[in-house]
Amino acid sequence: MNGGFIILSAKLRIKEVTMKVIVVGAGFGGINAAKTLAKNKSIDVVVVDKRNYHLFQPFLYQVATAGLSPADISVPIRAFFRGQKNVEVIMGEVAGIDQKSRLLKLSNNKNLKYDKVVIAAGAKNHIFNQDWAKHVYGLKSIQDALSLRKNILMSFELAEVEQDPVKRKAYTTFAIIGGGPTGVELAGAIAELARFTLSEDFRNIDPSDTRVILIEAGSRVLSTFDQGLSKKAKRALEKLGVSVWLESKVSNICKGKVELGSDVINANTIIWAAGVVSTDLAKDLEADVGVNLKRGNRLLVNEFLQVKGCEDIYAIGDISYFEKEELPGIAPVAIQQGKYVGKAIKRLFKEKEIRPFSYVDKGHMATIGRSKAIAQIGKLRFGGTIAWYLWVFIHIYFLIGFRNRVSVFLQWLWSYLTYKRGARIIN
Amino acid sequence: MNGGFIILSAKLRIKEVTMKVIVVGAGFGGINAAKTLAKNKSIDVVVVDKRNYHLFQPFLYQVATAGLSPADISVPIRAFFRGQKNVEVIMGEVAGIDQKSRLLKLSNNKNLKYDKVVIAAGAKNHIFNQDWAKHVYGLKSIQDALSLRKNILMSFELAEVEQDPVKRKAYTTFAIIGGGPTGVELAGAIAELARFTLSEDFRNIDPSDTRVILIEAGSRVLSTFDQGLSKKAKRALEKLGVSVWLESKVSNICKGKVELGSDVINANTIIWAAGVVSTDLAKDLEADVGVNLKRGNRLLVNEFLQVKGCEDIYAIGDISYFEKEELPGIAPVAIQQGKYVGKAIKRLFKEKEIRPFSYVDKGHMATIGRSKAIAQIGKLRFGGTIAWYLWVFIHIYFLIGFRNRVSVFLQWLWSYLTYKRGARIIN
Repeated sequence: MNGGFIILSAKLRIKEVTMKVIVVGAGFGGINAAKTLAKNKSIDVVVVDKRNYHLFQPFLYQVATAGLSPADISVPIRAFFRGQKNVEVIMGEVAGIDQKSRLLKLSNNKNLKYDKVVIAAGAKNHIFNQDWAKHVYGLKSIQDALSLRKNILMSFELAEVEQDPVKRKAYTTFAIIGGGPTGVELAGAIAELARFTLSEDFRNIDPSDTRVILIEAGSRVLSTFDQGLSKKAKRALEKLGVSVWLESKVSNICKGKVELGSDVINANTIIWAAGVVSTDLAKDLEADVGVNLKRGNRLLVNEFLQVKGCEDIYAIGDISYFEKEELPGIAPVAIQQGKYVGKAIKRLFKEKEIRPFSYVDKGHMATIGRSKAIAQIGKLRFGGTIAWYLWVFIHIYFLIGFRNRVSVFLQWLWSYLTYKRGARIIN
Repeated sequence: MNGGFIILSAKLRIKEVTMKVIVVGAGFGGINAAKTLAKNKSIDVVVVDKRNYHLFQPFLYQVATAGLSPADISVPIRAFFRGQKNVEVIMGEVAGIDQKSRLLKLSNNKNLKYDKVVIAAGAKNHIFNQDWAKHVYGLKSIQDALSLRKNILMSFELAEVEQDPVKRKAYTTFAIIGGGPTGVELAGAIAELARFTLSEDFRNIDPSDTRVILIEAGSRVLSTFDQGLSKKAKRALEKLGVSVWLESKVSNICKGKVELGSDVINANTIIWAAGVVSTDLAKDLEADVGVNLKRGNRLLVNEFLQVKGCEDIYAIGDISYFEKEELPGIAPVAIQQGKYVGKAIKRLFKEKEIRPFSYVDKGHMATIGRSKAIAQIGKLRFGGTIAWYLWVFIHIYFLIGFRNRVSVFLQWLWSYLTYKRGARIIN
């Protein structure tokens, strides 16, 4: 009887010190926050995402250009937490937050109680002119990548049977707006697809006549890199046959047409790679909780990554705006922030002291088609094939999940050796 | 000058003896017919298909159950004929045939002149009751497989957050109508997915409670096999947890419900695997050319696989009905017919004698989930693990394209060792 009482009391004690943390979004930030939190078995973690998979976003351009399949760059969220019984995964959409009652509201009208919330819901394409949005392809989701893939592959099919030379030319013209990493990587990959993979496959068109035009409003591509590396990247793109138009501002987009002042490009495929805005959840929070939004509708966070004005809510990755310094919207930032928040909440739970977040720049890189890349690591600046090998190694290393690493590596090897593509499918 | 004349005359001669053959459909039959024909460089081959890829249909059930990606079981049609300059590939839909002028009409209003046509346009699901069609999933195309995959995976997600036990049970109930190879393979694969792959991934449901019900109107599953093998297959399915309902005739299907007389199954997922009908092209030919259609709207063909009444048109595979004997709707039949027609047309071109077609049954097999299969080869009958290894070997061998062979093999190996699935993605 006494023993029974002790057990009961122990249970009660465990119950008392339990904490419930909801992580919204299973991108690089959310996954790392949840994994870090889950190590403390007294913390109950709930991961909410509208999709059932974590996406390795840096490889989306490879899905769009038929190099990889969606499944190669996604891992089921549940698979991450199979062994962690203190993590529950809910596939659902967040409708808002009731800060006073500490309730996260889901769109199916269910509410989840929380002690802390980590908002890691990411960003979406920001096409400021809604009339333009109808005519361009974005590249933020698997759906985006699959529509783009379909359109790219269909363009060549339509060109093959088109008699009118003007229309035929438009089918094999690809205009990419935005000279950041996404634009550069897409431009290189489309040029390669046309010139190497497809070159022997058509009888009426010559895929090496394909025009790929990369449009950048600023004075150089990859502007977060050093001047010299931007030049290297531009030269590498041009070697692949990409036309790089610098200081070119888009004045209008309509069906099959990009206008840049008096210049007009007739292109069947127009791709938007020129900037993002945070997901709608930030706007919802502005309404529900009354927080401040910064440029790109991002949630302003303090040095501990808490949303300014409500310390129970953390925000990380692309949906957050770090007060102390402007941080780039890249995976390493989200990963570091996710781990930091996980540790910070665990320390809070144990009532230990917490230090402010600071981002450690371990360098960044970009790839330009087959076997060329540029890298900027600390004081090091380099480009070419060595940078590409490094890029391959680092990206495979970061691909979460062993199976994907092996599969992606083999498919690359295969593509590299044969110039073929594994996922050339229209559906 | 004289030399010039000779060259011109040679060109003219080549021109004279050129023959144009159009192959409609790039399934097992069409691809083999085109490949065989292409070896004679004086024959111009045009392959017309509404899709840009050849599909390895026997593996569709693996896409539907998240084991493989669509790209793993498809090869771009153009890739088959990269080196064959006498083969042109056109992605387009056939609208009909003008037999008198020997014109194949495409739905984009373009016409293609032919000397011979090979119709290899295959079959589609045949759900005789159109009211039922809205509530069931088929499995004839990649789109079918992807919708089914989405529904299967979503069912578990919905069950996980459902409070009502009756609804929860319906979410994890899968009713499969038809005990042929497709039904049996799907039933086994869904049971495995639930019991092995997903078992540790949920917190509120136990995926091993999943009900998979295979409904067969006849007295046994896999009725084209020997009685003893049917029994083996049924036992193997039951070991995986599948309920096999024999002599059960579906009387009605409505949303989430299968009725079998007074029996009612509440199932979120209802799959139709009970028969096919030829594609619409056969009906078009009936109208355009006045040919005879046989059971399942199939084109009646003579001993040389020519459509009865028009010897310039050949029909092979699932769209054809062989007058001499009833042939099963399986890949080996289409492959043998494709090769035969290719050779027959080449011999016709060289004015050589042609022998009638006869099907050589090299045996058939079916797989039942992980590491069990049955095989019937000549007088041999066997089941179990050895049959499964044979099945794996033969199927990988027949997967056209080296890359797919290696990729599928590795993914199987990986799935086999880890019980995981590579393509668990909802989109």
